[in-house]
Amino acid sequence: MKIDVLSLFPSMFHGIFGESILKKASEKQAVTYNVVNFREYADNKHGQVDDYPYGGGAGMVLKPQPIFDAVESLKSENETKPRVVLMCPQGERYTQAKAEELAKEEHLIFICGHYEGYDERIRSHVVTDEISIGDYVLTGGELGAMVVIDSVVRLLPGVLGNEDSPILDSFSSGLLEHPHYTRPAEFRGMKVPAELISGNHRLIEEWREKESLRRTFERRPDLLEKRALSDKQRQWIEEWEKSR
Amino acid sequence: MKIDVLSLFPSMFHGIFGESILKKASEKQAVTYNVVNFREYADNKHGQVDDYPYGGGAGMVLKPQPIFDAVESLKSENETKPRVVLMCPQGERYTQAKAEELAKEEHLIFICGHYEGYDERIRSHVVTDEISIGDYVLTGGELGAMVVIDSVVRLLPGVLGNEDSPILDSFSSGLLEHPHYTRPAEFRGMKVPAELISGNHRLIEEWREKESLRRTFERRPDLLEKRALSDKQRQWIEEWEKSR
Repeated sequence: MKIDVLSLFPSMFHGIFGESILKKASEKQAVTYNVVNFREYADNKHGQVDDYPYGGGAGMVLKPQPIFDAVESLKSENETKPRVVLMCPQGERYTQAKAEELAKEEHLIFICGHYEGYDERIRSHVVTDEISIGDYVLTGGELGAMVVIDSVVRLLPGVLGNEDSPILDSFSSGLLEHPHYTRPAEFRGMKVPAELISGNHRLIEEWREKESLRRTFERRPDLLEKRALSDKQRQWIEEWEKSR
Repeated sequence: MKIDVLSLFPSMFHGIFGESILKKASEKQAVTYNVVNFREYADNKHGQVDDYPYGGGAGMVLKPQPIFDAVESLKSENETKPRVVLMCPQGERYTQAKAEELAKEEHLIFICGHYEGYDERIRSHVVTDEISIGDYVLTGGELGAMVVIDSVVRLLPGVLGNEDSPILDSFSSGLLEHPHYTRPAEFRGMKVPAELISGNHRLIEEWREKESLRRTFERRPDLLEKRALSDKQRQWIEEWEKSR
Protein backbone atom coordinates (compact mmCIF):
# COMPACT_ATOMS: atom_id res chain seq x y z
CA MET A 1 0.00 0.00 0.00
CA LYS A 2 1.14 3.53 -0.79
CA ILE A 3 0.11 6.25 1.67
CA ASP A 4 0.54 9.95 0.83
CA VAL A 5 -0.28 12.65 3.34
CA LEU A 6 -0.74 16.32 2.47
CA SER A 7 -0.01 18.49 5.50
CA LEU A 8 1.48 21.87 6.37
CA PHE A 9 3.14 20.21 9.40
CA PRO A 10 5.04 17.20 7.99
CA SER A 11 7.27 16.79 11.03
CA MET A 12 4.24 15.88 13.14
CA PHE A 13 4.34 12.51 11.37
CA HIS A 14 8.00 11.59 11.93
CA GLY A 15 7.63 10.14 15.41
CA ILE A 16 4.53 8.22 14.36
CA PHE A 17 5.81 6.57 11.19
CA GLY A 18 9.16 5.85 12.85
CA GLU A 19 7.87 3.71 15.75
CA SER A 20 6.12 0.49 16.55
CA ILE A 21 3.77 -1.21 14.07
CA LEU A 22 3.81 1.60 11.48
CA LYS A 23 7.60 1.36 11.36
CA LYS A 24 7.54 -2.44 11.17
CA ALA A 25 4.98 -2.35 8.37
CA SER A 26 7.25 -0.12 6.34
CA GLU A 27 10.33 -2.28 7.08
CA LYS A 28 8.33 -5.32 5.90
CA GLN A 29 7.48 -3.31 2.74
CA ALA A 30 3.77 -3.70 3.36
CA VAL A 31 3.43 0.09 3.11
CA THR A 32 5.27 3.20 1.92
CA TYR A 33 4.67 6.57 3.59
CA ASN A 34 5.18 9.92 1.95
CA VAL A 35 4.37 13.21 3.68
CA VAL A 36 4.06 16.19 1.36
CA ASN A 37 3.97 19.80 2.44
CA PHE A 38 1.44 21.11 -0.06
CA ARG A 39 2.82 24.61 0.39
CA GLU A 40 5.47 23.46 -2.10
CA TYR A 41 2.75 23.32 -4.75
CA ALA A 42 1.51 26.90 -4.25
CA ASP A 43 1.91 28.75 -7.56
CA ASN A 44 2.48 32.14 -5.93
CA LYS A 45 5.71 33.71 -4.72
CA HIS A 46 4.91 33.63 -1.02
CA GLY A 47 3.80 30.01 -0.80
CA GLN A 48 0.35 31.17 0.23
CA VAL A 49 -2.06 28.25 0.67
CA ASP A 50 -5.07 29.94 2.25
CA ASP A 51 -7.08 33.10 1.78
CA TYR A 52 -10.08 34.97 3.21
CA PRO A 53 -13.52 33.41 2.79
CA TYR A 54 -15.88 34.80 0.16
CA GLY A 55 -18.84 36.39 1.88
CA GLY A 56 -16.78 37.47 4.91
CA GLY A 57 -16.37 36.05 8.40
CA ALA A 58 -13.52 34.90 10.65
CA GLY A 59 -10.97 32.23 9.76
CA MET A 60 -9.17 31.28 6.58
CA VAL A 61 -9.98 28.87 3.77
CA LEU A 62 -7.52 26.55 1.98
CA LYS A 63 -7.19 27.53 -1.67
CA PRO A 64 -8.01 24.96 -4.34
CA GLN A 65 -4.87 25.32 -6.51
CA PRO A 66 -2.12 23.90 -4.23
CA ILE A 67 -4.20 20.87 -3.23
CA PHE A 68 -5.48 20.14 -6.76
CA ASP A 69 -1.92 20.27 -8.08
CA ALA A 70 -0.45 18.19 -5.25
CA VAL A 71 -3.07 15.44 -5.61
CA GLU A 72 -2.68 15.36 -9.39
CA SER A 73 1.08 15.07 -9.08
CA LEU A 74 0.73 12.16 -6.62
CA LYS A 75 -1.83 10.46 -8.86
CA SER A 76 0.43 10.72 -11.89
CA GLU A 77 3.18 8.83 -10.06
CA ASN A 78 0.94 5.80 -9.57
CA GLU A 79 -1.02 3.62 -11.95
CA THR A 80 -3.85 2.76 -9.60
CA LYS A 81 -6.73 5.07 -8.76
CA PRO A 82 -6.28 6.34 -5.19
CA ARG A 83 -8.89 6.99 -2.52
CA VAL A 84 -8.51 10.66 -1.53
CA VAL A 85 -9.51 11.11 2.11
CA LEU A 86 -10.34 14.50 3.62
CA MET A 87 -10.16 14.66 7.43
CA CYS A 88 -12.95 16.96 8.67
CA PRO A 89 -15.67 17.26 11.33
CA GLN A 90 -18.41 17.02 8.68
CA GLY A 91 -17.20 13.64 7.42
CA GLU A 92 -18.70 10.23 8.03
CA ARG A 93 -17.98 8.83 11.47
CA TYR A 94 -14.98 6.50 11.29
CA THR A 95 -15.55 2.85 12.20
CA GLN A 96 -13.69 -0.44 12.08
CA ALA A 97 -15.75 -1.41 9.00
CA LYS A 98 -14.34 1.63 7.18
CA ALA A 99 -10.80 0.65 8.27
CA GLU A 100 -11.35 -2.79 6.73
CA GLU A 101 -12.65 -1.21 3.53
CA LEU A 102 -9.65 1.15 3.20
CA ALA A 103 -7.21 -1.69 3.97
CA LYS A 104 -8.17 -3.27 0.62
CA GLU A 105 -6.94 -0.24 -1.38
CA GLU A 106 -3.53 0.09 -3.00
CA HIS A 107 -3.15 3.85 -2.67
CA LEU A 108 -4.52 6.31 -0.11
CA ILE A 109 -4.03 10.09 -0.12
CA PHE A 110 -4.92 12.01 3.06
CA ILE A 111 -5.60 15.76 3.04
CA CYS A 112 -5.06 17.44 6.40
CA GLY A 113 -6.18 21.01 6.94
CA HIS A 114 -5.15 22.93 10.03
CA TYR A 115 -7.73 25.37 11.55
CA GLU A 116 -8.59 26.47 8.00
CA GLY A 117 -11.72 25.50 6.16
CA TYR A 118 -11.46 23.76 2.78
CA ASP A 119 -12.57 25.47 -0.43
CA GLU A 120 -15.66 23.53 -1.46
CA ARG A 121 -14.20 22.76 -4.89
CA ILE A 122 -11.65 20.52 -3.13
CA ARG A 123 -14.43 18.49 -1.53
CA SER A 124 -16.49 18.16 -4.68
CA HIS A 125 -13.76 17.50 -7.26
CA VAL A 126 -10.73 15.94 -5.56
CA VAL A 127 -11.96 14.06 -2.53
CA THR A 128 -13.51 10.57 -2.54
CA ASP A 129 -14.09 10.16 1.23
CA GLU A 130 -14.67 12.62 4.07
CA ILE A 131 -13.90 11.14 7.49
CA SER A 132 -14.34 12.33 11.07
CA ILE A 133 -12.81 10.26 13.89
CA GLY A 134 -15.31 11.52 16.49
CA ASP A 135 -17.50 14.34 17.80
CA TYR A 136 -14.75 16.49 19.30
CA VAL A 137 -12.79 19.47 17.98
CA LEU A 138 -9.15 19.00 16.99
CA THR A 139 -6.63 21.59 15.85
CA GLY A 140 -6.06 19.93 12.50
CA GLY A 141 -6.59 16.85 10.39
CA GLU A 142 -3.16 15.39 11.15
CA LEU A 143 -4.08 13.42 14.28
CA GLY A 144 -7.19 12.08 12.56
CA ALA A 145 -5.12 10.93 9.58
CA MET A 146 -2.67 9.19 11.95
CA VAL A 147 -5.55 7.38 13.65
CA VAL A 148 -6.95 6.18 10.32
CA ILE A 149 -3.50 5.16 9.04
CA ASP A 150 -2.69 3.21 12.21
CA SER A 151 -6.00 1.34 12.16
CA VAL A 152 -5.64 0.52 8.43
CA VAL A 153 -1.96 -0.47 8.35
CA ARG A 154 -2.27 -2.96 11.21
CA LEU A 155 -4.84 -4.82 9.08
CA LEU A 156 -2.50 -5.27 6.10
CA PRO A 157 -1.40 -8.88 5.53
CA GLY A 158 1.79 -9.82 7.38
CA VAL A 159 2.00 -6.67 9.48
CA LEU A 160 0.93 -7.97 12.89
CA GLY A 161 3.23 -10.76 14.09
CA ASN A 162 2.29 -13.20 16.83
CA GLU A 163 4.28 -11.14 19.30
CA ASP A 164 1.96 -8.18 18.64
CA SER A 165 -1.19 -10.20 19.14
CA PRO A 166 -3.59 -7.90 20.92
CA ILE A 167 -5.61 -9.05 23.91
CA LEU A 168 -8.97 -8.83 22.20
CA ASP A 169 -10.62 -12.21 22.79
CA SER A 170 -14.02 -10.74 23.24
CA PHE A 171 -13.88 -7.97 20.65
CA SER A 172 -15.04 -10.22 17.84
CA SER A 173 -17.66 -11.75 20.13
CA GLY A 174 -19.39 -8.36 20.32
CA LEU A 175 -18.81 -8.04 24.09
CA LEU A 176 -16.24 -5.96 25.95
CA GLU A 177 -13.16 -7.76 27.19
CA HIS A 178 -13.12 -9.43 30.58
CA PRO A 179 -10.53 -8.11 33.09
CA HIS A 180 -6.95 -9.34 32.75
CA TYR A 181 -4.42 -10.12 35.48
CA THR A 182 -0.75 -11.00 35.46
CA ARG A 183 1.87 -11.69 38.13
CA PRO A 184 2.24 -11.18 41.01
CA ALA A 185 -0.81 -13.04 42.38
CA GLU A 186 -0.84 -10.51 45.22
CA PHE A 187 0.32 -6.92 44.77
CA ARG A 188 0.11 -4.58 47.78
CA GLY A 189 -2.66 -6.70 49.24
CA MET A 190 -4.68 -6.80 45.99
CA LYS A 191 -5.23 -10.38 44.90
CA VAL A 192 -5.87 -12.00 41.54
CA PRO A 193 -9.33 -13.68 41.53
CA ALA A 194 -9.09 -17.28 42.80
CA GLU A 195 -10.74 -18.68 39.65
CA LEU A 196 -7.86 -17.49 37.43
CA ILE A 197 -5.18 -19.24 39.47
CA SER A 198 -7.27 -22.38 40.09
CA GLY A 199 -5.83 -24.24 37.10
CA ASN A 200 -9.41 -25.38 36.39
CA HIS A 201 -10.10 -24.44 32.78
CA ARG A 202 -13.86 -24.76 33.01
CA LEU A 203 -13.88 -22.39 35.98
CA ILE A 204 -11.58 -19.91 34.19
CA GLU A 205 -13.74 -19.88 31.05
CA GLU A 206 -16.90 -19.33 33.06
CA TRP A 207 -15.31 -16.49 35.04
CA ARG A 208 -14.17 -14.81 31.82
CA GLU A 209 -17.57 -15.22 30.16
CA LYS A 210 -19.33 -13.77 33.20
CA GLU A 211 -16.97 -10.80 33.66
CA SER A 212 -17.04 -9.97 29.96
CA LEU A 213 -20.84 -9.93 30.10
CA ARG A 214 -20.81 -7.90 33.33
CA ARG A 215 -18.52 -5.23 31.88
CA THR A 216 -20.68 -4.99 28.75
CA PHE A 217 -23.84 -4.81 30.91
CA GLU A 218 -22.36 -2.00 33.00
CA ARG A 219 -20.67 0.05 30.26
CA ARG A 220 -22.24 -0.71 26.90
CA PRO A 221 -25.74 -2.15 27.44
CA ASP A 222 -26.49 -1.14 23.83
CA LEU A 223 -24.30 -4.04 22.68
CA LEU A 224 -26.59 -6.53 24.47
CA GLU A 225 -29.86 -5.35 22.99
CA LYS A 226 -29.90 -7.45 19.84
CA ARG A 227 -27.95 -10.31 21.29
CA ALA A 228 -29.06 -13.90 21.81
CA LEU A 229 -28.25 -14.82 25.43
CA SER A 230 -28.00 -18.24 27.04
CA ASP A 231 -30.15 -19.10 30.08
CA LYS A 232 -27.14 -18.72 32.33
CA GLN A 233 -26.31 -15.30 30.89
CA ARG A 234 -29.89 -14.12 31.35
CA GLN A 235 -29.77 -15.30 34.97
CA TRP A 236 -26.57 -13.35 35.64
CA ILE A 237 -28.08 -10.21 34.16
CA GLU A 238 -31.21 -10.58 36.30
CA GLU A 239 -29.02 -10.80 39.41
CA TRP A 240 -27.09 -7.65 38.44
CA GLU A 241 -30.30 -5.80 37.71
CA LYS A 242 -31.68 -6.70 41.16
CA SER A 243 -28.55 -5.58 42.98
CA ARG A 244 -28.51 -2.15 41.32
CA MET B 1 -1.83 22.62 33.25
CA LYS B 2 0.64 19.80 33.76
CA ILE B 3 0.36 16.82 31.40
CA ASP B 4 2.25 13.60 32.06
CA VAL B 5 2.14 10.71 29.63
CA LEU B 6 3.22 7.16 30.45
CA SER B 7 4.25 5.32 27.30
CA LEU B 8 6.75 2.72 26.11
CA PHE B 9 7.19 4.80 22.92
CA PRO B 10 8.01 8.34 24.13
CA SER B 11 9.44 9.46 20.79
CA MET B 12 6.01 9.11 19.17
CA PHE B 13 5.12 12.33 21.01
CA HIS B 14 8.04 14.52 19.95
CA GLY B 15 6.65 15.63 16.60
CA ILE B 16 3.25 16.29 18.14
CA PHE B 17 4.27 18.38 21.15
CA GLY B 18 6.82 20.27 19.01
CA GLU B 19 4.40 21.68 16.41
CA SER B 20 1.48 24.00 15.99
CA ILE B 21 -0.92 24.76 18.85
CA LEU B 22 0.54 22.24 21.29
CA LYS B 23 3.94 23.87 20.86
CA LYS B 24 2.49 27.40 21.16
CA ALA B 25 0.60 26.43 24.31
CA SER B 26 3.82 25.27 25.92
CA GLU B 27 5.71 28.41 24.80
CA LYS B 28 2.94 30.51 26.35
CA GLN B 29 3.38 28.43 29.53
CA ALA B 30 -0.26 27.37 29.48
CA VAL B 31 0.88 23.76 29.66
CA THR B 32 3.92 21.58 30.49
CA TYR B 33 4.37 18.19 28.81
CA ASN B 34 6.32 15.32 30.28
CA VAL B 35 6.55 11.93 28.59
CA VAL B 36 7.74 9.11 30.83
CA ASN B 37 8.84 5.67 29.67
CA PHE B 38 7.39 3.60 32.50
CA ARG B 39 9.90 0.85 31.74
CA GLU B 40 12.25 2.99 33.84
CA TYR B 41 10.12 2.18 36.87
CA ALA B 42 10.25 -1.61 36.47
CA ASP B 43 11.80 -3.07 39.63
CA ASN B 44 13.34 -6.05 37.83
CA LYS B 45 16.72 -6.33 36.12
CA HIS B 46 15.39 -6.68 32.59
CA GLY B 47 13.00 -3.74 32.62
CA GLN B 48 10.11 -6.13 32.09
CA VAL B 49 6.75 -4.34 32.11
CA ASP B 50 4.38 -7.09 30.92
CA ASP B 51 3.82 -10.75 31.61
CA TYR B 52 1.55 -13.65 30.61
CA PRO B 53 -2.12 -13.48 31.57
CA TYR B 54 -3.36 -15.57 34.49
CA GLY B 55 -5.71 -18.24 33.18
CA GLY B 56 -3.89 -18.52 29.85
CA GLY B 57 -4.57 -17.16 26.39
CA ALA B 58 -2.73 -15.10 23.77
CA GLY B 59 -1.26 -11.65 24.32
CA MET B 60 0.49 -9.99 27.22
CA VAL B 61 -0.73 -7.97 30.20
CA LEU B 62 0.93 -4.85 31.66
CA LYS B 63 2.13 -5.53 35.19
CA PRO B 64 0.81 -3.37 38.02
CA GLN B 65 4.15 -2.45 39.68
CA PRO B 66 5.78 -0.17 37.06
CA ILE B 67 2.60 1.83 36.47
CA PHE B 68 1.68 2.11 40.16
CA ASP B 69 5.19 3.37 40.95
CA ALA B 70 5.33 5.77 37.99
CA VAL B 71 1.96 7.35 38.81
CA GLU B 72 2.86 7.68 42.50
CA SER B 73 6.13 9.35 41.63
CA LEU B 74 4.35 11.83 39.33
CA LYS B 75 1.71 12.51 41.98
CA SER B 76 4.33 13.22 44.63
CA GLU B 77 5.88 15.95 42.46
CA ASN B 78 2.61 17.90 42.41
CA GLU B 79 0.37 19.27 45.10
CA THR B 80 -2.91 18.93 43.23
CA LYS B 81 -4.78 15.67 42.75
CA PRO B 82 -4.45 14.56 39.12
CA ARG B 83 -6.98 12.89 36.86
CA VAL B 84 -5.43 9.62 35.72
CA VAL B 85 -6.72 8.72 32.27
CA LEU B 86 -6.43 5.22 30.80
CA MET B 87 -6.78 5.03 27.01
CA CYS B 88 -8.66 1.81 26.13
CA PRO B 89 -11.41 0.42 23.88
CA GLN B 90 -13.63 -0.29 26.92
CA GLY B 91 -13.57 3.33 28.07
CA GLU B 92 -16.32 5.92 27.81
CA ARG B 93 -16.69 7.38 24.33
CA TYR B 94 -14.79 10.67 24.13
CA THR B 95 -16.83 13.82 23.42
CA GLN B 96 -16.33 17.57 23.34
CA ALA B 97 -18.13 17.78 26.72
CA LYS B 98 -15.44 15.54 28.23
CA ALA B 99 -12.72 17.74 26.66
CA GLU B 100 -14.26 20.77 28.36
CA GLU B 101 -14.39 18.91 31.67
CA LEU B 102 -10.72 17.86 31.47
CA ALA B 103 -9.66 21.38 30.44
CA LYS B 104 -10.63 22.58 33.95
CA GLU B 105 -8.08 20.30 35.65
CA GLU B 106 -4.58 21.31 36.73
CA HIS B 107 -2.89 17.97 36.24
CA LEU B 108 -3.61 15.09 33.85
CA ILE B 109 -1.74 11.78 33.67
CA PHE B 110 -2.31 9.57 30.62
CA ILE B 111 -1.52 5.84 30.64
CA CYS B 112 -0.90 4.38 27.17
CA GLY B 113 -0.67 0.63 26.72
CA HIS B 114 0.51 -0.85 23.44
CA TYR B 115 -1.17 -4.11 22.26
CA GLU B 116 -1.00 -5.36 25.87
CA GLY B 117 -3.94 -5.57 28.20
CA TYR B 118 -3.84 -3.76 31.55
CA ASP B 119 -3.75 -5.66 34.82
CA GLU B 120 -7.16 -4.99 36.36
CA ARG B 121 -5.60 -3.62 39.55
CA ILE B 122 -4.35 -0.64 37.51
CA ARG B 123 -7.91 0.16 36.39
CA SER B 124 -9.45 -0.22 39.81
CA HIS B 125 -6.81 1.48 41.99
CA VAL B 126 -4.88 4.02 39.89
CA VAL B 127 -7.15 5.22 37.11
CA THR B 128 -9.88 7.87 37.47
CA ASP B 129 -11.12 7.92 33.83
CA GLU B 130 -11.16 5.32 31.05
CA ILE B 131 -11.52 6.87 27.60
CA SER B 132 -12.01 5.49 24.08
CA ILE B 133 -11.80 7.92 21.14
CA GLY B 134 -14.01 5.74 18.90
CA ASP B 135 -15.14 2.26 17.85
CA TYR B 136 -12.05 1.27 15.89
CA VAL B 137 -8.94 -0.73 16.81
CA LEU B 138 -5.62 1.11 17.25
CA THR B 139 -2.18 -0.33 17.94
CA GLY B 140 -1.77 1.53 21.21
CA GLY B 141 -3.12 4.24 23.47
CA GLU B 142 -0.62 6.85 22.25
CA LEU B 143 -2.69 8.26 19.35
CA GLY B 144 -5.77 8.37 21.55
CA ALA B 145 -3.86 10.30 24.21
CA MET B 146 -2.62 12.77 21.56
CA VAL B 147 -6.20 13.32 20.37
CA VAL B 148 -7.42 14.00 23.90
CA ILE B 149 -4.45 16.26 24.68
CA ASP B 150 -4.92 18.31 21.48
CA SER B 151 -8.65 18.80 22.08
CA VAL B 152 -8.07 19.79 25.73
CA VAL B 153 -5.05 22.09 25.31
CA ARG B 154 -6.70 24.20 22.59
CA LEU B 155 -9.43 25.03 25.14
CA LEU B 156 -7.00 26.41 27.75
CA PRO B 157 -7.26 30.18 28.25
CA GLY B 158 -4.97 32.21 25.98
CA VAL B 159 -3.90 29.30 23.77
CA LEU B 160 -5.89 30.02 20.61
CA GLY B 161 -5.01 33.41 19.16
CA ASN B 162 -7.22 35.22 16.67
CA GLU B 163 -4.99 34.00 13.87
CA ASP B 164 -5.89 30.41 14.80
CA SER B 165 -9.60 31.09 14.84
CA PRO B 166 -11.22 28.01 13.37
CA ILE B 167 -13.92 28.27 10.73
CA LEU B 168 -16.64 26.84 12.91
CA ASP B 169 -19.52 29.32 12.66
CA SER B 170 -22.16 26.67 12.69
CA PHE B 171 -20.61 24.20 15.10
CA SER B 172 -22.08 25.93 18.13
CA SER B 173 -25.39 26.29 16.31
CA GLY B 174 -25.74 22.51 16.29
CA LEU B 175 -25.67 22.31 12.47
CA LEU B 176 -22.81 21.29 10.21
CA GLU B 177 -20.81 24.09 8.57
CA HIS B 178 -21.91 25.55 5.27
CA PRO B 179 -19.42 25.24 2.37
CA HIS B 180 -16.55 27.74 2.20
CA TYR B 181 -14.95 29.35 -0.83
CA THR B 182 -11.93 31.54 -1.34
CA ARG B 183 -10.17 33.07 -4.33
CA PRO B 184 -10.08 32.65 -7.27
CA ALA B 185 -13.76 33.20 -8.10
CA GLU B 186 -13.28 30.78 -10.98
CA PHE B 187 -10.81 27.88 -10.84
CA ARG B 188 -10.56 25.54 -13.85
CA GLY B 189 -14.11 26.45 -14.80
CA MET B 190 -15.51 25.88 -11.30
CA LYS B 191 -17.19 29.02 -10.01
CA VAL B 192 -17.89 30.36 -6.56
CA PRO B 193 -21.69 30.62 -5.99
CA ALA B 194 -23.02 33.99 -7.16
CA GLU B 195 -24.58 34.78 -3.76
CA LEU B 196 -21.16 34.79 -2.04
CA ILE B 197 -19.66 37.39 -4.38
CA SER B 198 -22.84 39.49 -4.58
CA GLY B 199 -21.79 41.86 -1.80
CA ASN B 200 -25.38 41.56 -0.54
CA HIS B 201 -25.14 40.57 3.11
CA ARG B 202 -28.73 39.43 3.45
CA LEU B 203 -28.30 37.12 0.45
CA ILE B 204 -24.99 35.77 1.81
CA GLU B 205 -26.48 35.04 5.21
CA GLU B 206 -29.47 33.26 3.68
CA TRP B 207 -27.24 31.17 1.40
CA ARG B 208 -25.10 30.13 4.35
CA GLU B 209 -28.10 29.27 6.51
CA LYS B 210 -29.62 27.17 3.73
CA GLU B 211 -26.42 25.30 2.84
CA SER B 212 -25.62 24.62 6.47
CA LEU B 213 -29.10 23.15 6.89
CA ARG B 214 -28.79 21.19 3.64
CA ARG B 215 -25.50 19.61 4.64
CA THR B 216 -26.92 18.65 8.04
CA PHE B 217 -30.07 17.25 6.37
CA GLU B 218 -27.96 15.16 4.01
CA ARG B 219 -25.25 13.96 6.40
CA ARG B 220 -26.46 14.15 9.97
CA PRO B 221 -30.28 14.17 10.00
CA ASP B 222 -30.07 13.04 13.65
CA LEU B 223 -28.97 16.58 14.55
CA LEU B 224 -32.27 17.97 13.18
CA GLU B 225 -34.60 15.67 15.09
CA LYS B 226 -34.99 17.68 18.28
CA ARG B 227 -34.48 21.04 16.66
CA ALA B 228 -36.92 23.95 16.40
CA LEU B 229 -37.05 25.00 12.75
CA SER B 230 -38.34 28.22 11.22
CA ASP B 231 -41.08 28.12 8.54
CA LYS B 232 -38.51 28.85 5.88
CA GLN B 233 -36.25 26.04 7.08
CA ARG B 234 -39.14 23.57 7.11
CA GLN B 235 -40.02 24.61 3.56
CA TRP B 236 -36.44 23.99 2.36
CA ILE B 237 -36.44 20.55 3.95
CA GLU B 238 -39.75 19.67 2.29
CA GLU B 239 -38.29 20.61 -1.09
CA TRP B 240 -35.19 18.44 -0.50
CA GLU B 241 -37.34 15.53 0.63
CA LYS B 242 -39.44 15.75 -2.57
CA SER B 243 -36.41 15.85 -4.85
CA ARG B 244 -34.85 12.75 -3.31
